[in-house]
Amino acid sequence: MEISDLSAAGSVLSWDQATYMPNGGARARARQSATLSRLAHERAVDPALGKLLDALAPYAEALPYDSDDAGLIRVTRRDFERAIKLPPAFIARTTEFGSASYDAWTRARPANDFASMRPFLETAVELGREYANYFAPHDHVMDPAIDAADQGMTTATIRALFAELKNDLLPMVRAIADQPPPDDACLHGRFDARDQIDFSVGIVRRFGYDFERGRLNKTRHPFCTKFSAGDVRITTRVNDNDLGDALFSTLHEAGHALYEQGVNPAFDGTPLGWGASAGVHESQSRLWENVVGRSRGFWEHFYPMLQDRFPARVGNVALDTFYRAINKVRPSLIRTDADEVTYNLHIVMRFELEADMLEGRLAVKDLP
Amino acid sequence: MEISDLSAAGSVLSWDQATYMPNGGARARARQSATLSRLAHERAVDPALGKLLDALAPYAEALPYDSDDAGLIRVTRRDFERAIKLPPAFIARTTEFGSASYDAWTRARPANDFASMRPFLETAVELGREYANYFAPHDHVMDPAIDAADQGMTTATIRALFAELKNDLLPMVRAIADQPPPDDACLHGRFDARDQIDFSVGIVRRFGYDFERGRLNKTRHPFCTKFSAGDVRITTRVNDNDLGDALFSTLHEAGHALYEQGVNPAFDGTPLGWGASAGVHESQSRLWENVVGRSRGFWEHFYPMLQDRFPARVGNVALDTFYRAINKVRPSLIRTDADEVTYNLHIVMRFELEADMLEGRLAVKDLP
Repeated sequence: MEISDLSAAGSVLSWDQATYMPNGGARARARQSATLSRLAHERAVDPALGKLLDALAPYAEALPYDSDDAGLIRVTRRDFERAIKLPPAFIARTTEFGSASYDAWTRARPANDFASMRPFLETAVELGREYANYFAPHDHVMDPAIDAADQGMTTATIRALFAELKNDLLPMVRAIADQPPPDDACLHGRFDARDQIDFSVGIVRRFGYDFERGRLNKTRHPFCTKFSAGDVRITTRVNDNDLGDALFSTLHEAGHALYEQGVNPAFDGTPLGWGASAGVHESQSRLWENVVGRSRGFWEHFYPMLQDRFPARVGNVALDTFYRAINKVRPSLIRTDADEVTYNLHIVMRFELEADMLEGRLAVKDLP
Repeated sequence: MEISDLSAAGSVLSWDQATYMPNGGARARARQSATLSRLAHERAVDPALGKLLDALAPYAEALPYDSDDAGLIRVTRRDFERAIKLPPAFIARTTEFGSASYDAWTRARPANDFASMRPFLETAVELGREYANYFAPHDHVMDPAIDAADQGMTTATIRALFAELKNDLLPMVRAIADQPPPDDACLHGRFDARDQIDFSVGIVRRFGYDFERGRLNKTRHPFCTKFSAGDVRITTRVNDNDLGDALFSTLHEAGHALYEQGVNPAFDGTPLGWGASAGVHESQSRLWENVVGRSRGFWEHFYPMLQDRFPARVGNVALDTFYRAINKVRPSLIRTDADEVTYNLHIVMRFELEADMLEGRLAVKDLP
């Protein structure tokens, strides 16, 4: 409970940094976040917890695998085994670095200033290697991080999965690129920011996102964060000249939030009180963003409302034109600019890039 | 530093609860806040800190009284001596109670529902007595709380001070009440909320409140909070039908904030990184709100800007009418409704009321 409270408090600090914190607060905030994460970690590696888990092992074995208690003991054990490999000072350093590099990025991004981020990226790669070393030996330097995000997955299993995906994706992208691209002019032009937010809010409310247990804020890069079962917040980014930015970001984050709002509140404050894995999480966000949110059936219902909201922009645009525009496929290096097909390809490519960097085959200075 | 980081994180959680937190977050937030305050307290009473202070005593005695190091050691010792009297569990209970009662109050206030707050008030009185008991023996049950807010003050010194104030205040209030009250109609009527905020922001900016190291939010009851030297935030409350509410609340909180923004950033994260006492703090807030903000000279400069901002409301109101309206004196039970003269009297009365309740001469059930 204490570990969960400290983590939740750390999440509030991060959320605040991403939404409302004045510039002057950045330095102290990095230190405060580091302190919270270190204290949480010190509790997570308490030997008394290990002894308790040992004592509970026979009890857990007698339980059905899927019972709540068995799950709680299993996940707590897994978190504990992982945590004891990491020194609290490393956790504090990583958190402080994360907060400071986020702050630097908030200035570098609008200035399109990659050079100022290069040292941060170098440190991130170093910290990534150091993280992996605490879990040595391992087959691949990325395996510990992958296992932390999706237990049981490894570089080997992901490469096999991605090889299969590539087989289908590459011809698909090529076939699409050979076609004349659809006209997505209807998504560009001036869309009032307030109206964009209101329209997106109306949709995610219909999805079932509960604003009594959450809220939506503007930020620089959209995310979803959970402080408790009763407080799961989402953020979005609004581009006056691109309807798709706020809209699909909001649907995406609402997908994450629906998953977290759906977790049994009885698990609040325990290791079971969170989504099961990064993979499952992303499946939920992309289910609502793409499978639902870019589908024809969905827009048959919502498009007339969009036309009412932005008559000057899409009042005379046919549903089919709009539908093809929001599903336009184009190669891009930016994750949130990418559609479903190139996004999946992008994940494949980024994975290989990160693997190259962690293995030392590619240095930050070699990046474009 | 760790104590300060945990306290600052607790302040972020409180600020968030008062500004943006959805209703569903209240229960977990109370628990999270309690955990942070308990952990901060556990650190504040670490015997190693006491030993360090003992070891530093000869060094501190050799320093000039007003040197930073001597001050740091002195204030740390004072905080430590006070902290070790309080059990961490009591601190956690008090914090959790504060968070929960604030949540209840957010519903009771708009409903004007005193009955639902009565049990909270009873618990508050009980906690106040329990707090005092940890500092027994004392001359008066309120002395420990007064000393924590303003070191060296006691019920006896405050009663003497207040007796003197009453001597002058009572005839002053009577003399004013005998006059026909000034017409403050110009402060009422519809004032656009956004314009009220913008105008107040313009003034506190001119006071020197630094928005690069702070921000202004709307909330239910105005307050100022400090997370670090670089992040001192103020809040205000806007009433569409009362120009004075947001305006003077904002000037008041900016007074607190100017004091905290003026603290040497080198003291950040140490016991010297905060205002010296509640009394000095309130002197600063009321300096800017009343001595400056309700003065004639001030409005000779700012009144034309106010008229430009609200031409329909005060465009044809003479400066003198406005000046008398904002200095109108009327008896009131509500602190933030009161002007300077009745406010001071109110403090005197409230002090006696609290003393009666803590001493058991007055019970919560006897309140109107």
